[in-house]
Amino acid sequence: MKITILTLFPEFFDSFQATSIIKRALDRQLVEFETVDFRQYTLDKHNHVDDTPCGGGQGMLLSCQPIVDCIKAVKTEGSLVVMMSPQGKTFTQKVAHEFANVNHLILLCGHYEGFDERIRDYVDMEISLGDFVLTGGEGAAMVISDAVIRLLNGVILEESHADDSFENGLLEYPQYTRPVEYDGKRVPDVLLSGHHANIRKWRLKQSLIRTMEKRPDLLENRVFTKEEEKLMQEIKAERALEKEK
Amino acid sequence: MKITILTLFPEFFDSFQATSIIKRALDRQLVEFETVDFRQYTLDKHNHVDDTPCGGGQGMLLSCQPIVDCIKAVKTEGSLVVMMSPQGKTFTQKVAHEFANVNHLILLCGHYEGFDERIRDYVDMEISLGDFVLTGGEGAAMVISDAVIRLLNGVILEESHADDSFENGLLEYPQYTRPVEYDGKRVPDVLLSGHHANIRKWRLKQSLIRTMEKRPDLLENRVFTKEEEKLMQEIKAERALEKEK
Repeated sequence: MKITILTLFPEFFDSFQATSIIKRALDRQLVEFETVDFRQYTLDKHNHVDDTPCGGGQGMLLSCQPIVDCIKAVKTEGSLVVMMSPQGKTFTQKVAHEFANVNHLILLCGHYEGFDERIRDYVDMEISLGDFVLTGGEGAAMVISDAVIRLLNGVILEESHADDSFENGLLEYPQYTRPVEYDGKRVPDVLLSGHHANIRKWRLKQSLIRTMEKRPDLLENRVFTKEEEKLMQEIKAERALEKEK
Repeated sequence: MKITILTLFPEFFDSFQATSIIKRALDRQLVEFETVDFRQYTLDKHNHVDDTPCGGGQGMLLSCQPIVDCIKAVKTEGSLVVMMSPQGKTFTQKVAHEFANVNHLILLCGHYEGFDERIRDYVDMEISLGDFVLTGGEGAAMVISDAVIRLLNGVILEESHADDSFENGLLEYPQYTRPVEYDGKRVPDVLLSGHHANIRKWRLKQSLIRTMEKRPDLLENRVFTKEEEKLMQEIKAERALEKEK
Protein backbone atom coordinates (compact mmCIF):
# COMPACT_ATOMS: atom_id res chain seq x y z
CA MET A 1 0.00 0.00 0.00
CA LYS A 2 1.04 3.57 -0.69
CA ILE A 3 -0.06 6.74 1.10
CA THR A 4 0.53 10.12 -0.53
CA ILE A 5 -0.07 13.32 1.42
CA LEU A 6 -0.74 16.48 -0.57
CA THR A 7 0.22 19.40 1.65
CA LEU A 8 1.86 22.82 1.83
CA PHE A 9 3.87 21.54 4.83
CA PRO A 10 5.63 18.28 3.97
CA GLU A 11 8.03 18.80 6.90
CA PHE A 12 5.09 18.43 9.28
CA PHE A 13 5.29 14.67 8.64
CA ASP A 14 9.02 14.25 9.36
CA SER A 15 8.65 13.28 13.02
CA PHE A 16 5.73 10.99 12.25
CA GLN A 17 7.84 8.98 9.82
CA ALA A 18 10.76 8.82 12.25
CA THR A 19 8.95 7.52 15.34
CA SER A 20 8.12 4.11 16.81
CA ILE A 21 5.78 1.72 15.02
CA ILE A 22 5.39 3.85 11.87
CA LYS A 23 9.15 4.15 11.45
CA ARG A 24 9.47 0.37 11.77
CA ALA A 25 6.70 -0.21 9.22
CA LEU A 26 8.43 2.15 6.78
CA ASP A 27 11.86 0.58 7.39
CA ARG A 28 10.41 -2.84 6.72
CA GLN A 29 8.68 -1.51 3.58
CA LEU A 30 5.26 -2.64 4.76
CA VAL A 31 3.91 0.66 3.48
CA GLU A 32 5.13 3.41 1.17
CA PHE A 33 4.62 6.94 2.46
CA GLU A 34 5.30 10.15 0.57
CA THR A 35 4.47 13.83 0.88
CA VAL A 36 3.93 16.08 -2.13
CA ASP A 37 3.96 19.87 -1.81
CA PHE A 38 1.22 21.11 -4.11
CA ARG A 39 2.87 24.53 -4.24
CA GLN A 40 5.26 23.06 -6.79
CA TYR A 41 2.32 22.72 -9.19
CA THR A 42 1.25 26.35 -9.13
CA LEU A 43 1.42 28.30 -12.38
CA ASP A 44 1.28 31.60 -10.47
CA LYS A 45 4.40 33.61 -11.12
CA HIS A 46 4.70 34.57 -7.43
CA ASN A 47 4.28 30.92 -6.45
CA HIS A 48 0.99 31.65 -4.68
CA VAL A 49 -1.49 28.85 -4.07
CA ASP A 50 -4.19 30.94 -2.41
CA ASP A 51 -6.30 34.02 -2.98
CA THR A 52 -8.99 36.09 -1.22
CA PRO A 53 -12.58 34.81 -1.07
CA CYS A 54 -15.05 36.01 -3.71
CA GLY A 55 -17.74 38.06 -2.01
CA GLY A 56 -15.43 39.12 0.81
CA GLY A 57 -14.52 37.55 4.14
CA GLN A 58 -11.50 36.78 6.26
CA GLY A 59 -8.47 34.75 5.33
CA MET A 60 -7.24 33.12 2.18
CA LEU A 61 -8.62 30.18 0.19
CA LEU A 62 -6.67 27.52 -1.64
CA SER A 63 -7.09 27.96 -5.41
CA CYS A 64 -8.21 25.30 -7.86
CA GLN A 65 -5.30 25.22 -10.28
CA PRO A 66 -2.34 24.07 -8.15
CA ILE A 67 -4.34 21.48 -6.23
CA VAL A 68 -6.27 20.03 -9.16
CA ASP A 69 -3.10 19.82 -11.26
CA CYS A 70 -1.30 18.14 -8.37
CA ILE A 71 -4.09 15.59 -7.88
CA LYS A 72 -4.05 14.79 -11.61
CA ALA A 73 -0.27 14.35 -11.58
CA VAL A 74 -0.20 12.09 -8.53
CA LYS A 75 -3.22 9.87 -8.96
CA THR A 76 -3.22 6.55 -10.74
CA GLU A 77 -5.87 3.95 -11.46
CA GLY A 78 -5.83 2.47 -7.96
CA SER A 79 -5.93 5.82 -6.15
CA LEU A 80 -8.57 7.01 -3.72
CA VAL A 81 -8.42 10.80 -3.33
CA VAL A 82 -9.63 11.91 0.10
CA MET A 83 -10.02 15.53 1.11
CA MET A 84 -9.51 16.36 4.80
CA SER A 85 -12.52 18.50 5.66
CA PRO A 86 -14.63 19.16 8.74
CA GLN A 87 -17.60 18.72 6.41
CA GLY A 88 -16.71 15.15 5.48
CA LYS A 89 -17.89 11.79 6.74
CA THR A 90 -16.53 11.17 10.24
CA PHE A 91 -13.46 8.90 10.39
CA THR A 92 -14.01 5.66 12.33
CA GLN A 93 -12.31 2.31 12.71
CA LYS A 94 -14.57 1.00 9.94
CA VAL A 95 -13.24 3.65 7.56
CA ALA A 96 -9.69 2.82 8.70
CA HIS A 97 -10.24 -0.78 7.59
CA GLU A 98 -11.66 0.40 4.23
CA PHE A 99 -8.66 2.66 3.66
CA ALA A 100 -6.26 -0.15 4.61
CA ASN A 101 -7.61 -2.08 1.61
CA VAL A 102 -6.94 0.75 -0.83
CA ASN A 103 -3.99 0.41 -3.19
CA HIS A 104 -3.05 4.09 -3.13
CA LEU A 105 -4.53 6.47 -0.60
CA ILE A 106 -4.13 10.19 -1.36
CA LEU A 107 -4.90 12.53 1.53
CA LEU A 108 -5.39 16.18 0.57
CA CYS A 109 -4.67 18.64 3.39
CA GLY A 110 -6.17 22.12 3.38
CA HIS A 111 -4.79 25.06 5.28
CA TYR A 112 -5.83 28.68 5.87
CA GLU A 113 -9.57 29.29 5.53
CA GLY A 114 -10.20 26.29 3.30
CA PHE A 115 -10.55 25.12 -0.30
CA ASP A 116 -12.17 26.73 -3.29
CA GLU A 117 -15.45 24.87 -3.47
CA ARG A 118 -14.79 23.62 -6.99
CA ILE A 119 -11.87 21.47 -5.82
CA ARG A 120 -14.46 19.13 -4.28
CA ASP A 121 -15.32 17.95 -7.81
CA TYR A 122 -11.87 16.37 -8.15
CA VAL A 123 -11.82 14.25 -5.00
CA ASP A 124 -13.46 10.89 -4.37
CA MET A 125 -14.59 11.63 -0.84
CA GLU A 126 -14.26 13.99 2.11
CA ILE A 127 -13.31 12.79 5.56
CA SER A 128 -13.50 14.61 8.88
CA LEU A 129 -11.56 13.54 11.94
CA GLY A 130 -14.30 14.84 14.21
CA ASP A 131 -16.39 17.85 15.15
CA PHE A 132 -13.57 20.30 15.76
CA VAL A 133 -11.48 22.79 13.78
CA LEU A 134 -7.74 22.48 13.10
CA THR A 135 -5.21 24.92 11.64
CA GLY A 136 -4.88 22.55 8.70
CA GLY A 137 -5.61 19.06 7.50
CA GLU A 138 -2.09 17.83 8.29
CA GLY A 139 -2.82 16.63 11.85
CA ALA A 140 -5.90 14.78 10.63
CA ALA A 141 -4.00 13.17 7.75
CA MET A 142 -1.29 12.04 10.16
CA VAL A 143 -3.75 10.45 12.57
CA ILE A 144 -5.59 8.73 9.73
CA SER A 145 -2.30 7.42 8.30
CA ASP A 146 -1.41 6.07 11.73
CA ALA A 147 -4.76 4.30 12.15
CA VAL A 148 -4.48 2.79 8.67
CA ILE A 149 -0.82 1.75 8.75
CA ARG A 150 -1.19 -0.16 12.02
CA LEU A 151 -3.85 -2.33 10.34
CA LEU A 152 -1.55 -3.40 7.51
CA ASN A 153 -0.24 -6.95 7.50
CA GLY A 154 2.84 -7.41 9.63
CA VAL A 155 2.89 -3.98 11.29
CA ILE A 156 1.40 -5.15 14.58
CA LEU A 157 0.84 -8.69 15.82
CA GLU A 158 -2.49 -9.93 14.51
CA GLU A 159 -3.58 -10.98 18.01
CA SER A 160 -3.06 -7.47 19.34
CA HIS A 161 -5.93 -6.13 17.28
CA ALA A 162 -8.76 -8.35 18.36
CA ASP A 163 -9.36 -6.80 21.79
CA ASP A 164 -8.75 -3.16 20.89
CA SER A 165 -11.56 -0.80 21.69
CA PHE A 166 -14.04 -0.62 18.74
CA GLU A 167 -12.58 -3.67 16.96
CA ASN A 168 -15.21 -5.99 18.40
CA GLY A 169 -17.73 -3.19 18.87
CA LEU A 170 -16.95 -2.89 22.60
CA LEU A 171 -14.60 -0.82 24.70
CA GLU A 172 -11.59 -2.72 25.99
CA TYR A 173 -11.73 -4.34 29.43
CA PRO A 174 -9.53 -3.02 32.29
CA GLN A 175 -5.92 -4.16 32.05
CA TYR A 176 -3.42 -4.53 34.89
CA THR A 177 0.26 -5.21 35.17
CA ARG A 178 2.59 -5.67 38.13
CA PRO A 179 2.89 -4.84 40.98
CA VAL A 180 -0.14 -6.67 42.36
CA GLU A 181 -0.65 -3.82 44.79
CA TYR A 182 0.06 -0.19 43.95
CA ASP A 183 -0.80 2.68 46.28
CA GLY A 184 -3.38 0.50 48.05
CA LYS A 185 -5.05 -0.65 44.82
CA ARG A 186 -4.96 -4.38 44.05
CA VAL A 187 -5.18 -6.26 40.76
CA PRO A 188 -8.51 -8.17 40.74
CA ASP A 189 -8.03 -11.71 42.09
CA VAL A 190 -9.42 -13.44 39.02
CA LEU A 191 -6.52 -12.12 36.90
CA LEU A 192 -4.05 -13.76 39.28
CA SER A 193 -5.94 -17.06 39.41
CA GLY A 194 -4.41 -18.58 36.27
CA HIS A 195 -7.90 -19.82 35.36
CA HIS A 196 -8.05 -18.86 31.69
CA ALA A 197 -11.75 -19.48 31.08
CA ASN A 198 -12.69 -17.34 34.09
CA ILE A 199 -10.31 -14.61 33.02
CA ARG A 200 -11.77 -14.53 29.51
CA LYS A 201 -15.30 -14.36 30.88
CA TRP A 202 -14.42 -11.65 33.40
CA ARG A 203 -12.84 -9.55 30.65
CA LEU A 204 -15.81 -9.89 28.34
CA LYS A 205 -18.15 -8.92 31.17
CA GLN A 206 -16.01 -5.88 32.02
CA SER A 207 -16.01 -4.85 28.36
CA LEU A 208 -19.78 -4.99 28.35
CA ILE A 209 -20.05 -3.01 31.61
CA ARG A 210 -17.67 -0.31 30.36
CA THR A 211 -19.40 0.05 27.05
CA MET A 212 -22.78 0.22 28.78
CA GLU A 213 -21.52 2.93 31.13
CA LYS A 214 -19.35 5.01 28.82
CA ARG A 215 -20.68 4.44 25.32
CA PRO A 216 -24.19 2.96 25.41
CA ASP A 217 -24.59 4.09 21.76
CA LEU A 218 -22.18 1.34 20.70
CA LEU A 219 -24.58 -1.30 22.03
CA GLU A 220 -27.68 0.04 20.28
CA ASN A 221 -27.56 -2.09 17.16
CA ARG A 222 -25.33 -4.83 18.51
CA VAL A 223 -26.13 -8.48 17.80
CA PHE A 224 -25.13 -10.10 21.11
CA THR A 225 -23.72 -13.61 21.27
CA LYS A 226 -25.44 -16.08 23.60
CA GLU A 227 -22.65 -15.61 26.13
CA GLU A 228 -22.88 -11.83 25.94
CA GLU A 229 -26.64 -11.96 26.41
CA LYS A 230 -26.23 -14.06 29.53
CA LEU A 231 -23.60 -11.68 30.88
CA MET A 232 -25.82 -8.67 30.17
CA GLN A 233 -28.59 -10.32 32.21
CA GLU A 234 -26.11 -10.97 35.01
CA ILE A 235 -25.00 -7.33 34.94
CA LYS A 236 -28.55 -6.03 35.03
CA ALA A 237 -29.47 -8.35 37.90
CA GLU A 238 -26.42 -7.23 39.88
CA ARG A 239 -27.32 -3.59 39.33
CA ALA A 240 -30.92 -4.10 40.39
CA LEU A 241 -29.62 -5.77 43.56
CA GLU A 242 -27.26 -2.87 44.24
CA LYS A 243 -30.07 -0.40 43.88
CA GLU A 244 -32.17 -2.26 46.45
CA LYS A 245 -29.41 -1.92 49.01
CA MET B 1 -1.46 28.95 28.77
CA LYS B 2 0.87 26.00 29.03
CA ILE B 3 0.50 22.56 27.43
CA THR B 4 2.60 19.66 28.71
CA ILE B 5 2.68 16.38 26.83
CA LEU B 6 3.65 13.26 28.79
CA THR B 7 4.97 10.75 26.28
CA LEU B 8 7.58 8.11 25.55
CA PHE B 9 8.24 9.84 22.20
CA PRO B 10 8.93 13.56 22.74
CA GLU B 11 10.57 13.75 19.30
CA PHE B 12 7.17 12.98 17.74
CA PHE B 13 6.23 16.61 18.48
CA ASP B 14 9.28 18.26 16.87
CA SER B 15 7.72 18.87 13.45
CA PHE B 16 4.47 20.05 15.02
CA GLN B 17 6.28 22.78 16.95
CA ALA B 18 8.28 23.80 13.88
CA THR B 19 5.43 24.28 11.40
CA SER B 20 3.16 27.12 10.34
CA ILE B 21 0.65 28.65 12.75
CA ILE B 22 1.80 26.66 15.79
CA LYS B 23 5.42 27.69 15.25
CA ARG B 24 4.32 31.32 15.03
CA ALA B 25 2.26 31.04 18.21
CA LEU B 26 5.24 29.53 20.04
CA ASP B 27 7.66 32.14 18.66
CA ARG B 28 5.33 34.89 19.83
CA GLN B 29 5.01 33.19 23.25
CA LEU B 30 1.22 33.02 23.00
CA VAL B 31 1.45 29.51 24.44
CA GLU B 32 4.06 27.45 26.24
CA PHE B 33 4.48 23.92 24.94
CA GLU B 34 6.66 21.22 26.47
CA THR B 35 7.10 17.47 26.21
CA VAL B 36 8.13 15.31 29.16
CA ASP B 37 9.38 11.76 28.67
CA PHE B 38 7.90 9.76 31.54
CA ARG B 39 10.57 7.12 31.09
CA GLN B 40 12.87 9.43 33.04
CA TYR B 41 10.69 8.86 36.11
CA THR B 42 10.95 5.07 36.16
CA LEU B 43 12.57 3.46 39.19
CA ASP B 44 13.11 0.24 37.24
CA LYS B 45 16.80 -0.57 37.01
CA HIS B 46 16.48 -1.52 33.33
CA ASN B 47 14.60 1.71 32.63
CA HIS B 48 11.43 -0.19 31.71
CA VAL B 49 8.06 1.57 31.84
CA ASP B 50 5.92 -1.39 30.81
CA ASP B 51 5.20 -4.97 31.77
CA THR B 52 3.06 -7.91 30.63
CA PRO B 53 -0.69 -7.96 31.41
CA CYS B 54 -1.85 -9.81 34.55
CA GLY B 55 -4.00 -12.73 33.49
CA GLY B 56 -2.24 -13.05 30.14
CA GLY B 57 -2.76 -11.46 26.75
CA GLN B 58 -0.84 -9.78 23.97
CA GLY B 59 1.45 -6.81 24.22
CA MET B 60 2.76 -4.69 27.05
CA LEU B 61 1.01 -2.32 29.43
CA LEU B 62 2.32 0.95 30.83
CA SER B 63 3.02 0.56 34.56
CA CYS B 64 1.69 2.76 37.33
CA GLN B 65 4.91 3.95 38.95
CA PRO B 66 6.66 5.95 36.20
CA ILE B 67 3.49 7.60 34.95
CA VAL B 68 1.97 8.43 38.32
CA ASP B 69 5.30 9.82 39.59
CA CYS B 70 5.63 11.87 36.40
CA ILE B 71 2.11 13.29 36.75
CA LYS B 72 2.79 14.21 40.37
CA ALA B 73 6.06 15.93 39.43
CA VAL B 74 4.61 17.93 36.56
CA LYS B 75 1.21 18.99 37.82
CA THR B 76 0.50 22.21 39.67
CA GLU B 77 -2.62 23.77 41.14
CA GLY B 78 -3.94 25.02 37.80
CA SER B 79 -3.34 21.74 35.94
CA LEU B 80 -5.92 19.62 34.20
CA VAL B 81 -4.58 16.10 33.62
CA VAL B 82 -6.14 14.48 30.56
CA MET B 83 -5.52 10.90 29.52
CA MET B 84 -5.68 10.14 25.77
CA SER B 85 -7.87 7.06 25.62
CA PRO B 86 -10.32 5.58 23.12
CA GLN B 87 -12.59 5.07 26.12
CA GLY B 88 -12.79 8.77 26.96
CA LYS B 89 -15.32 11.45 26.17
CA THR B 90 -15.16 12.35 22.48
CA PHE B 91 -13.19 15.51 21.68
CA THR B 92 -15.27 18.28 20.08
CA GLN B 93 -14.96 21.99 19.43
CA LYS B 94 -16.78 22.58 22.73
CA VAL B 95 -14.08 20.65 24.59
CA ALA B 96 -11.43 22.60 22.64
CA HIS B 97 -12.88 25.84 24.02
CA GLU B 98 -12.94 24.40 27.56
CA PHE B 99 -9.30 23.32 27.27
CA ALA B 100 -8.34 26.75 25.87
CA ASN B 101 -9.46 28.22 29.19
CA VAL B 102 -7.30 25.91 31.28
CA ASN B 103 -4.17 27.34 32.84
CA HIS B 104 -2.07 24.22 32.39
CA LEU B 105 -3.22 21.36 30.19
CA ILE B 106 -1.40 18.05 30.68
CA LEU B 107 -2.00 15.45 27.95
CA LEU B 108 -0.95 11.90 28.85
CA CYS B 109 -0.16 9.70 25.85
CA GLY B 110 -0.31 5.93 26.08
CA HIS B 111 1.48 3.55 23.77
CA TYR B 112 1.63 -0.22 23.33
CA GLU B 113 -1.48 -2.06 24.53
CA GLY B 114 -2.53 0.65 26.97
CA PHE B 115 -2.38 1.79 30.58
CA ASP B 116 -2.52 -0.15 33.82
CA GLU B 117 -6.11 0.49 34.88
CA ARG B 118 -5.06 2.05 38.20
CA ILE B 119 -3.44 5.02 36.42
CA ARG B 120 -6.97 6.26 35.66
CA ASP B 121 -7.29 7.23 39.35
CA TYR B 122 -4.61 9.90 38.90
CA VAL B 123 -6.07 11.76 35.92
CA ASP B 124 -8.87 14.33 35.87
CA MET B 125 -10.51 13.09 32.71
CA GLU B 126 -10.14 10.84 29.66
CA ILE B 127 -10.54 12.16 26.13
CA SER B 128 -10.90 10.22 22.90
CA LEU B 129 -10.27 11.76 19.50
CA GLY B 130 -12.85 9.48 17.92
CA ASP B 131 -13.96 5.90 17.39
CA PHE B 132 -10.71 4.54 16.00
CA VAL B 133 -7.48 3.02 17.28
CA LEU B 134 -4.02 4.61 17.04
CA THR B 135 -0.52 3.27 17.70
CA GLY B 136 -0.32 5.73 20.59
CA GLY B 137 -1.88 8.81 22.09
CA GLU B 138 0.68 11.14 20.49
CA GLY B 139 -1.25 11.85 17.29
CA ALA B 140 -4.38 12.59 19.31
CA ALA B 141 -2.50 14.89 21.71
CA MET B 142 -1.01 16.78 18.75
CA VAL B 143 -4.39 17.30 17.10
CA ILE B 144 -5.94 18.42 20.38
CA SER B 145 -3.05 20.84 21.01
CA ASP B 146 -3.55 22.25 17.51
CA ALA B 147 -7.31 22.74 18.01
CA VAL B 148 -6.71 24.41 21.39
CA ILE B 149 -3.77 26.64 20.44
CA ARG B 150 -5.58 28.16 17.46
CA LEU B 151 -8.32 29.36 19.83
CA LEU B 152 -5.90 31.28 22.05
CA ASN B 153 -5.92 35.06 21.89
CA GLY B 154 -3.81 36.45 19.08
CA VAL B 155 -3.00 33.17 17.33
CA ILE B 156 -5.58 33.60 14.56
CA LEU B 157 -7.61 36.68 13.67
CA GLU B 158 -10.75 36.76 15.82
CA GLU B 159 -12.96 37.22 12.75
CA SER B 160 -11.61 34.06 11.16
CA HIS B 161 -13.22 31.90 13.81
CA ALA B 162 -16.84 32.97 13.56
CA ASP B 163 -17.68 31.15 10.33
CA ASP B 164 -15.65 27.99 10.90
CA SER B 165 -17.58 24.76 10.72
CA PHE B 166 -19.03 23.87 14.16
CA GLU B 167 -18.34 27.32 15.67
CA ASN B 168 -21.88 28.51 15.04
CA GLY B 169 -23.31 25.00 15.08
CA LEU B 170 -23.42 24.82 11.27
CA LEU B 171 -21.09 23.62 8.55
CA GLU B 172 -19.33 26.37 6.65
CA TYR B 173 -20.87 27.70 3.42
CA PRO B 174 -19.12 27.10 0.06
CA GLN B 175 -16.18 29.42 -0.55
CA TYR B 176 -14.76 30.50 -3.89
CA THR B 177 -11.70 32.39 -5.03
CA ARG B 178 -10.48 33.49 -8.46
CA PRO B 179 -10.64 32.71 -11.31
CA VAL B 180 -14.37 33.34 -11.82
CA GLU B 181 -14.44 30.38 -14.20
CA TYR B 182 -12.35 27.25 -13.74
CA ASP B 183 -12.73 24.15 -15.91
CA GLY B 184 -16.25 25.24 -16.88
CA LYS B 185 -17.36 25.87 -13.29
CA ARG B 186 -18.36 29.45 -12.36
CA VAL B 187 -18.38 31.28 -9.05
CA PRO B 188 -22.06 31.92 -8.13
CA ASP B 189 -23.17 35.35 -9.38
CA VAL B 190 -24.25 36.62 -5.98
CA LEU B 191 -20.66 36.47 -4.71
CA LEU B 192 -19.56 38.77 -7.54
CA SER B 193 -22.47 41.21 -7.05
CA GLY B 194 -20.83 43.28 -4.33
CA HIS B 195 -24.19 43.28 -2.51
CA HIS B 196 -23.09 42.49 1.03
CA ALA B 197 -26.51 41.80 2.55
CA ASN B 198 -27.35 39.35 -0.23
CA ILE B 199 -23.98 37.65 0.10
CA ARG B 200 -24.43 37.23 3.84
CA LYS B 201 -27.92 35.79 3.38
CA TRP B 202 -26.79 33.44 0.58
CA ARG B 203 -23.95 32.15 2.77
CA LEU B 204 -26.19 31.53 5.75
CA LYS B 205 -28.67 29.68 3.54
CA GLN B 206 -25.90 27.55 2.04
CA SER B 207 -24.64 26.74 5.54
CA LEU B 208 -28.12 25.56 6.49
CA ILE B 209 -28.48 23.48 3.30
CA ARG B 210 -25.08 21.84 3.80
CA THR B 211 -25.71 21.03 7.41
CA MET B 212 -29.14 19.63 6.56
CA GLU B 213 -27.63 17.42 3.84
CA LYS B 214 -24.39 16.34 5.44
CA ARG B 215 -24.94 16.56 9.19
CA PRO B 216 -28.65 16.71 10.04
CA ASP B 217 -27.72 15.67 13.59
CA LEU B 218 -26.21 19.13 14.17
CA LEU B 219 -29.64 20.71 13.61
CA GLU B 220 -31.56 18.47 15.96
CA ASN B 221 -31.43 20.63 19.07
CA ARG B 222 -30.67 23.91 17.36
CA VAL B 223 -32.47 27.08 18.41
CA PHE B 224 -32.93 28.82 15.05
CA THR B 225 -32.91 32.60 14.72
CA LYS B 226 -35.91 34.21 12.98
CA GLU B 227 -33.82 34.65 9.83
CA GLU B 228 -32.69 31.03 9.90
CA GLU B 229 -36.24 29.83 10.36
CA LYS B 230 -37.37 31.81 7.35
CA LEU B 231 -34.50 30.43 5.29
CA MET B 232 -35.30 26.87 6.39
CA GLN B 233 -38.87 27.36 5.17
CA GLU B 234 -37.54 28.71 1.87
CA ILE B 235 -35.26 25.70 1.50
CA LYS B 236 -38.06 23.25 2.21
CA ALA B 237 -40.39 25.00 -0.23
CA GLU B 238 -37.72 24.91 -2.94
CA ARG B 239 -37.16 21.22 -2.36
CA ALA B 240 -40.86 20.42 -2.48
CA LEU B 241 -41.04 22.29 -5.78
CA GLU B 242 -38.08 20.36 -7.16
CA LYS B 243 -39.69 17.07 -6.22
CA GLU B 244 -42.85 17.99 -8.12
CA LYS B 245 -40.87 18.49 -11.31
